[in-house]
Amino acid sequence: MISRPLVKTFLLCCLIAQLSLPSLAQTDSLMGFSRGGSQSQLAIEQRYDEMLQAQNLDDWMKFMSARPHHVGSPYDKQVVDFMTNKFKEWGYEVKVESFDILFPTPKVLQLELISPTRYTAKLSEPPVEGDVSSTLTDEALPPYNCFSVDGDVTAELVFVNYGLPEDYEELEKLGVDVKGKIVLAKYMGSWRGIKPKVAAEKGAIGCIIYSDPQDDGFFQGDTYPEGPYKNEFGVQRGAVMDLPLSPGDVLTPGYGATKKAKRLAKEDAPALTKIPVLPISYHDALPLLEALEGPVAPGSWRGGLPLTYHIGPGPATVHLKVAFNWDMKPAHNIIATLRGSEYPDEWVIRGNHHDAWVHGALDPVSGMVILMEEARSVSELVKSGHSPKRTIVYCAWGAEEPGLIGSTEWVETHEEELKEKAVAYINTDGSGSGFLYAGGSHTLEKFFSGITEVVMDPQTDVPLLKRRNAYENLSGEDNWSHFKLYALGSGSDYSPFFQHTGIASFNLGFGGESSGGEYHTMYDTYEMYKRFKDPTFQYGVTLAKVAGRTTLRLANAEILPFEFQHFTNTVAEYVDEVIKLADALRENTEKENKRITEGVYALAADPSKLFVVPEPKPSVPYFNFAPLQNVLDELKLQAQTFEEVSKTASISEADKQKLNQLLKDMERSLTREEGLPGRPWFKHHIYAPGFYTGYGVKTLPGVRESIEQRNFEQVDVQIKLVAEVLSRFSDKICEAVALMK
Amino acid sequence: MISRPLVKTFLLCCLIAQLSLPSLAQTDSLMGFSRGGSQSQLAIEQRYDEMLQAQNLDDWMKFMSARPHHVGSPYDKQVVDFMTNKFKEWGYEVKVESFDILFPTPKVLQLELISPTRYTAKLSEPPVEGDVSSTLTDEALPPYNCFSVDGDVTAELVFVNYGLPEDYEELEKLGVDVKGKIVLAKYMGSWRGIKPKVAAEKGAIGCIIYSDPQDDGFFQGDTYPEGPYKNEFGVQRGAVMDLPLSPGDVLTPGYGATKKAKRLAKEDAPALTKIPVLPISYHDALPLLEALEGPVAPGSWRGGLPLTYHIGPGPATVHLKVAFNWDMKPAHNIIATLRGSEYPDEWVIRGNHHDAWVHGALDPVSGMVILMEEARSVSELVKSGHSPKRTIVYCAWGAEEPGLIGSTEWVETHEEELKEKAVAYINTDGSGSGFLYAGGSHTLEKFFSGITEVVMDPQTDVPLLKRRNAYENLSGEDNWSHFKLYALGSGSDYSPFFQHTGIASFNLGFGGESSGGEYHTMYDTYEMYKRFKDPTFQYGVTLAKVAGRTTLRLANAEILPFEFQHFTNTVAEYVDEVIKLADALRENTEKENKRITEGVYALAADPSKLFVVPEPKPSVPYFNFAPLQNVLDELKLQAQTFEEVSKTASISEADKQKLNQLLKDMERSLTREEGLPGRPWFKHHIYAPGFYTGYGVKTLPGVRESIEQRNFEQVDVQIKLVAEVLSRFSDKICEAVALMK
Repeated sequence: MISRPLVKTFLLCCLIAQLSLPSLAQTDSLMGFSRGGSQSQLAIEQRYDEMLQAQNLDDWMKFMSARPHHVGSPYDKQVVDFMTNKFKEWGYEVKVESFDILFPTPKVLQLELISPTRYTAKLSEPPVEGDVSSTLTDEALPPYNCFSVDGDVTAELVFVNYGLPEDYEELEKLGVDVKGKIVLAKYMGSWRGIKPKVAAEKGAIGCIIYSDPQDDGFFQGDTYPEGPYKNEFGVQRGAVMDLPLSPGDVLTPGYGATKKAKRLAKEDAPALTKIPVLPISYHDALPLLEALEGPVAPGSWRGGLPLTYHIGPGPATVHLKVAFNWDMKPAHNIIATLRGSEYPDEWVIRGNHHDAWVHGALDPVSGMVILMEEARSVSELVKSGHSPKRTIVYCAWGAEEPGLIGSTEWVETHEEELKEKAVAYINTDGSGSGFLYAGGSHTLEKFFSGITEVVMDPQTDVPLLKRRNAYENLSGEDNWSHFKLYALGSGSDYSPFFQHTGIASFNLGFGGESSGGEYHTMYDTYEMYKRFKDPTFQYGVTLAKVAGRTTLRLANAEILPFEFQHFTNTVAEYVDEVIKLADALRENTEKENKRITEGVYALAADPSKLFVVPEPKPSVPYFNFAPLQNVLDELKLQAQTFEEVSKTASISEADKQKLNQLLKDMERSLTREEGLPGRPWFKHHIYAPGFYTGYGVKTLPGVRESIEQRNFEQVDVQIKLVAEVLSRFSDKICEAVALMK
Repeated sequence: MISRPLVKTFLLCCLIAQLSLPSLAQTDSLMGFSRGGSQSQLAIEQRYDEMLQAQNLDDWMKFMSARPHHVGSPYDKQVVDFMTNKFKEWGYEVKVESFDILFPTPKVLQLELISPTRYTAKLSEPPVEGDVSSTLTDEALPPYNCFSVDGDVTAELVFVNYGLPEDYEELEKLGVDVKGKIVLAKYMGSWRGIKPKVAAEKGAIGCIIYSDPQDDGFFQGDTYPEGPYKNEFGVQRGAVMDLPLSPGDVLTPGYGATKKAKRLAKEDAPALTKIPVLPISYHDALPLLEALEGPVAPGSWRGGLPLTYHIGPGPATVHLKVAFNWDMKPAHNIIATLRGSEYPDEWVIRGNHHDAWVHGALDPVSGMVILMEEARSVSELVKSGHSPKRTIVYCAWGAEEPGLIGSTEWVETHEEELKEKAVAYINTDGSGSGFLYAGGSHTLEKFFSGITEVVMDPQTDVPLLKRRNAYENLSGEDNWSHFKLYALGSGSDYSPFFQHTGIASFNLGFGGESSGGEYHTMYDTYEMYKRFKDPTFQYGVTLAKVAGRTTLRLANAEILPFEFQHFTNTVAEYVDEVIKLADALRENTEKENKRITEGVYALAADPSKLFVVPEPKPSVPYFNFAPLQNVLDELKLQAQTFEEVSKTASISEADKQKLNQLLKDMERSLTREEGLPGRPWFKHHIYAPGFYTGYGVKTLPGVRESIEQRNFEQVDVQIKLVAEVLSRFSDKICEAVALMK
């Protein structure tokens, strides 16, 4: 434990050290800190760690997840008030910024099998023994898919596997058409909103989504309450808006849903589904699947229910009726600010959402209470004399569940200020235990890796990097020389910061030893969390150490710890991938077309079964990847020069400020104002959620998706655009180097 | 249709042509035939085809599978008499050679779950609607594993996946020991007899084997009688003797079970299991699996039952009691001979077994009736003036099901005569529809491929090779330049001919469009076959065309159509495989040991669960593959020379006889009298069933299994032995070349 006078000494050292050279190379000192600054920072971190109390996480989770607290619910307001008071108590400047957003809730949810047998779907999640929270069904929203349109349809059923474009190609081969049918799709394989989107594109008139026990149920392990996996009644709620088009309030796409904002009519909102959608349990899916005939589903489509999976269409005929209250509800964002002592106009933003589908003990409360404990400990640091140099903004977002709405509206509203001031955004959401997973900007990968080398795994007492490396090693990966950030797609509140605004971002969490089936069900409760996720909150405290260090080092760094070799190497991998993707698609298309034209398909098929030989596809031309390859060479050179110069540079205070401004804006130079093809909201040109994956990332998205979606005339255009972006980025590194020389 | 005088003309041509050069190169004439001989042979084949009647297959199957006809049953005798009369009627010289063999049948079969809940296993297969045959339960043997020892054991249950050595390695990691326990293993993954063998090696005291619906049940498709797949009560019967040690009568290992033969006491028979074994249905397995606790089974172990698969041990405790009538029964082999018109002491042998586990419509009757129709058609050829030059021996084997017993005893009894006279053995067994599958000696691959180029697929009217190629092509294989024979392991009556005696062999059948779960159950009936296998027997007739051509061409060839380039290329692939196997094992052992010693396993494990870090394994030395590589070079040269010389050679009648004798003995030169390590019965050194696969082949078995089983000091020894074998083989090719020059 470090004593208060010692801290003061360190702070003094720090002030002196700022005049000498801070390190970007993380040799003997922390990245972005001088040697003296490092010592000071390490002392601060040690004190910060000592402040962290697991019991707080437990107490706050118990309170915040005690009752259902979805958007607009009475308990959501209580949770907001509770947190607001906490932040105030800890000395933060707190604002609650609320937006009026469209949040449909169920009025009628009805699903019946009407022939050849009859079955009325239960569509409810009964209380389970030992979980008092699960008894509060009256306050909870029943299972539904938010932003489904109203609908009342009756039709034959077709089982469509995960309901992805490739599944429909398979259906075509089997001679099955979904036009005018209701599709039954398994959850997983993509973000849920993709399923009704593709189904509607194919002419289906309704979409039912269920959790198959092979993916998410007894096949995985014992079910709740005996174990953590999804029981037969559990249903995954969730939004089905067209998220890959843009998240946020569906009536104010691209701008803040403020009181005065002009709103679209609901009927004109492009993000609503085109057909009615309903999620169900595997208990309810069983009779539907049992009533299907037609071809047996391909091997990889079959799930864990005790039946032979048939595709249909029919004879199962279902009646699906859904209707919603299309009400406006408040999305409350809590913004708690600690003004920076030296650079108040440079913001390090740390966020987690607070709204849940039901109790949300894991999602989002587990992450929210970690953030709160970070904020509390930082406030203790302030009390003991350390005020961070940059402004730290703690955010508790509302209305994340229906579509990242609170954060998106806030970012859209404050876009210009954020572009000017934001240094980075650090996100968490539900978090469990086991191994650290972190996604983010590769311009900060080296910086972040340093943190994973010093924070210890609570179970094994080795650095988090080392434990994660053990896991990766067993999975067949080579040893990790550094902690690898995954590329960010979508699925939590970093999206508006990162992909829309170009603010360097992180998404952090623990997992791997806390799997379960509670996601967006009635059973994501405190009782469940305490048994199966992180019973003693030891990983919660560990994540507070990681996220706290990330926040504090960014807030205190003398020179912002961006560097560009990790980014360049990562982009080089992406370029390699898209080149291989084009080659593989070309080769496969040739092979497939040859099979079609040479009659191989027809010959291999069983003549006693219907098989429709597919049409040959247009062959894949060769693309000009040279602009990307050339700019990569340039980038490598600049990144290396930056690395070398930063080791020896001596820099004036004035230039340091210029340099920090430049570094802060680097990530944003990876965006383009016009956004990605067909979805202008997504401006980042290196990372985006996939148009047909929803959450899953597509790196170099303009290029990659043009190839994947066979828009071949777009590929060279997109290559040039990304190359331009990277060239601009490279020029900026050059500017940074000039400042340091 | 070819007229009788024309046949005579061809026969005359044939006689003349014999004096000129027969072709081994299959250019304008058939392999082994002169141009004139080819024309004659083709005419014969056309006439042969025209004789084939699908209705015969149907009628005979209906009769022969009308009642259960296992070894020693009353109906087995009726079937034997029926066939014997048929062969006699067709003009064959018929002998029924019977052997007295040990054939245990069930006296007591009992399985109960005695705690924590109680359940008494049904152990029976009820009749199903629409299948009259399935009502004859009184005559049928109940489901059991033949050659299980008697036993009465009670112990906790452990689920061991497929019960293979690697599964026990996994169990060790999970801290689960099967000593003193009863194991529950899934069928599949290996031949069934491996499961009790390995379980006993590991200290288990009983073994239960069940068919999981994911592998063999509703997961695959609709179940019987709705569809062809295994219903919840179906049980796979089958032998569990130590087949990889040696097949045949367990009391007379290695020699014929004649009346006078000296027999081992049952207690001394090494092939019996060490622990009691019982097969059950998935209906009976369900309550056992439900009663297991302990670790959740690894993902790949889990099956299709609607439960979470746990490993145990216990709390499920079971009582298993089995007792057998250890009776001697007759294995009747029908040997129907057509004496060769020119070379009566050169035998082409064609066989299929006739005994079934129950009705055996598919296994073995579908193949048996094909063989019968071949024999009938050949007899018609004889009547119309074509007597094959070599002797054709049609065999209907008894007691194949309990362990290839009839054929093995016959081969062991006639071993010397067979070594002298046998040219080749052509086996069939159950056959369905779809694609031709053929395994065999690669010295005859080119010859056989020629047949697949002219026999047409009945559904698509393209050559069988072309249709199979379409299937392989869709599975990702390159186009087949020729029909590829798979390497023979075990599982049917070719084993004593091929692996014990070194007679070039084939195993032929159709499959791919006739899958189902009837194998060794009460439901392998005529009714089932007519609905789901080959309803019009069109593939039966096609197989008669293939096997008939194989038989007739071998019987009539002027020079036996062996060649050695296909064999050499195939062995070169095997050599490549074992070298890669050693390298991969070395690399994996190093990697694995590194993970162990560096603590990766310990770090990656979830500390809340028991995980036993395995011991490091001895590292894999480098082996001297040079003898194999050198002899391969020699072999390539000789095979090429043989090919070239055979194109231009002119050969005297006397030398032709010498050459044929030489060629006939080639395959046998691939055997060694001392057999394979630890199992002298298996003498072939290129192909053998695996010691831990049972049916699945291991090529270059001495070398491959020494590596796999980590008997590293044996590897170089075995390499030398195989190299010697191949060198001798190469010398023999040299002799053949000398005769042709």
